[in-house]
Amino acid sequence: MKNLMNNVDNVLTESLDGFAAAHADIVALGAEHEFVRRKRNKPGKVALISGGGAGHEPLHAGFVGHGMLDAACPGQIFTSPTPNQMMNAAQAVDGGAGVLFIVKNYSGDMMNFQMASEMLDQENAVVVVNDDVAVEDSTYTTGRRGVAGTLIVEKILGAAAERGETLAALKTLGDAVNKATASMGVALTSCTVPAAGKPTFQIGMDEMEVGVGIHGEPGRRRVPLASADAIAEELTGAVLKDLALQSGQEVILLVNGFGGTPLVELYLMVNAARKVLDRHGIRVARHLTGSYVTSLEMAGCSITVTAVTPEFLALWDAPVHTAALRWGM
Amino acid sequence: MKNLMNNVDNVLTESLDGFAAAHADIVALGAEHEFVRRKRNKPGKVALISGGGAGHEPLHAGFVGHGMLDAACPGQIFTSPTPNQMMNAAQAVDGGAGVLFIVKNYSGDMMNFQMASEMLDQENAVVVVNDDVAVEDSTYTTGRRGVAGTLIVEKILGAAAERGETLAALKTLGDAVNKATASMGVALTSCTVPAAGKPTFQIGMDEMEVGVGIHGEPGRRRVPLASADAIAEELTGAVLKDLALQSGQEVILLVNGFGGTPLVELYLMVNAARKVLDRHGIRVARHLTGSYVTSLEMAGCSITVTAVTPEFLALWDAPVHTAALRWGM
Repeated sequence: MKNLMNNVDNVLTESLDGFAAAHADIVALGAEHEFVRRKRNKPGKVALISGGGAGHEPLHAGFVGHGMLDAACPGQIFTSPTPNQMMNAAQAVDGGAGVLFIVKNYSGDMMNFQMASEMLDQENAVVVVNDDVAVEDSTYTTGRRGVAGTLIVEKILGAAAERGETLAALKTLGDAVNKATASMGVALTSCTVPAAGKPTFQIGMDEMEVGVGIHGEPGRRRVPLASADAIAEELTGAVLKDLALQSGQEVILLVNGFGGTPLVELYLMVNAARKVLDRHGIRVARHLTGSYVTSLEMAGCSITVTAVTPEFLALWDAPVHTAALRWGM
Repeated sequence: MKNLMNNVDNVLTESLDGFAAAHADIVALGAEHEFVRRKRNKPGKVALISGGGAGHEPLHAGFVGHGMLDAACPGQIFTSPTPNQMMNAAQAVDGGAGVLFIVKNYSGDMMNFQMASEMLDQENAVVVVNDDVAVEDSTYTTGRRGVAGTLIVEKILGAAAERGETLAALKTLGDAVNKATASMGVALTSCTVPAAGKPTFQIGMDEMEVGVGIHGEPGRRRVPLASADAIAEELTGAVLKDLALQSGQEVILLVNGFGGTPLVELYLMVNAARKVLDRHGIRVARHLTGSYVTSLEMAGCSITVTAVTPEFLALWDAPVHTAALRWGM
């Protein structure tokens, strides 16, 4: 894989400098590139902080701003940020109402966020996202992995925090949204971490990895490349089985690209996923389609379904102004 | 290359079905998938229509909606739409004030849009976009190619049409924005048209194509892969030379991904391009960063600069509500 870069050691910091310059109306950078923060704090508001390894952009820095995150702590590519980054971010965006950490379930992230949570003077809580139904336990995880559903948790919690919900209420809401959310993905190609310089995994020209993780971790099975309809059937089927939804249930459908799949194919997958949902009597109340939780240039996609209440839906629709998601303002 | 698809002949139509379902609040599909149209016409408004081969998504259908295009006519992947599609689109979105076609300068598109323009009963005009400074004449073009700058022309014209400008005024404005806009790109990998099944061009693991077109057409030269700073210097330098800007000039900077380049690298390129612009005394008034005018899964990016007047900037900032660009509403 070839990269647009100057020096493999500076990919993250130079990218963050570009990001902060491009979105100077929304965000500011913490010292030493430790975190991306919302430009202006809102006193009295619970601060929402997420983070994780880089390489999944726009997750998480792209979701910092009004109605979503207060700060994001980026680690090196596919590497957890440190507890220090999280504590410094918490100090910077403190609104006096406590801090909520939103963490994807990966062992490194969990350990570091929990350490930050314990060392922090401010009142705080942790919402763990583990929406990936593909496998229990995997390369970097004990229990289910946190993947694209994380952005749905961040959006809904962000809207609730913006309207002044308490830390306890947000913790309860976050756990409920996570429980109502399930995802599964498929990879057609590998990705290459610039510092590694070679593909994370090998995959044949006629193969796909069903249930892949967002770092290219193995999923359920390696099988011959199937049709879009067959893939949608397997991914959506697994997600619906996990959520055990009733016919008539309203959902948010997120068809998420891993980075290397063209938008023309993602919308084709939307069409394929809708056919499966229709057959189960599930009604798509809202769509989001695009490469939002990526694995560098990996080809493939994931399907995420969140079963919504009217409350979830109102919070999803609430105004948001971030680099990657913007509506209502 | 592996694709998420069912049947190579249905990639476009199934994708359009997914797109129309996902954005049913904004768009509707014309009969037989001939065009994507704005859901509700606005009487008395000049209708803006663009189009071109698919494979560049979100261009153009992703820019249909309030404050931008009234309709987009998609051809098969990298293939011009037909004059019939354009005429039927014009009929469908007619607001009684005439039709403006916005056309990227490719021979097939030019021929078909001009034919539609001549056959149309409605008063109409054509704005041709030819922002690519890389080469004069190329594989599919006489004169300079139209590339990522097209979206800037569409956004600014869309805002002006929305506020009620006449067809003649919009034609003049569109030509002026095109003249103030210049782009150049670089490819690190090829793309593969699904119907062709093999890469459009061959490129070595240590090479890049400088000045590539958005269908993988040859550019200025094939050279060893350079650093991001060196690439930014060459692309931005060529663009600035073409525009011959004065120090102090304000611009819109669009760093556009071709589809296969991760966002972390695109923001790194923003940082690199800003260094070049700074050195020339050019001030970036607005940024847009992302994969907006793509070449399927091709890796690489283009840099577009539009020299702005206060008028251009106000139109750029005006509310827009499309699948791919949304702000102010």
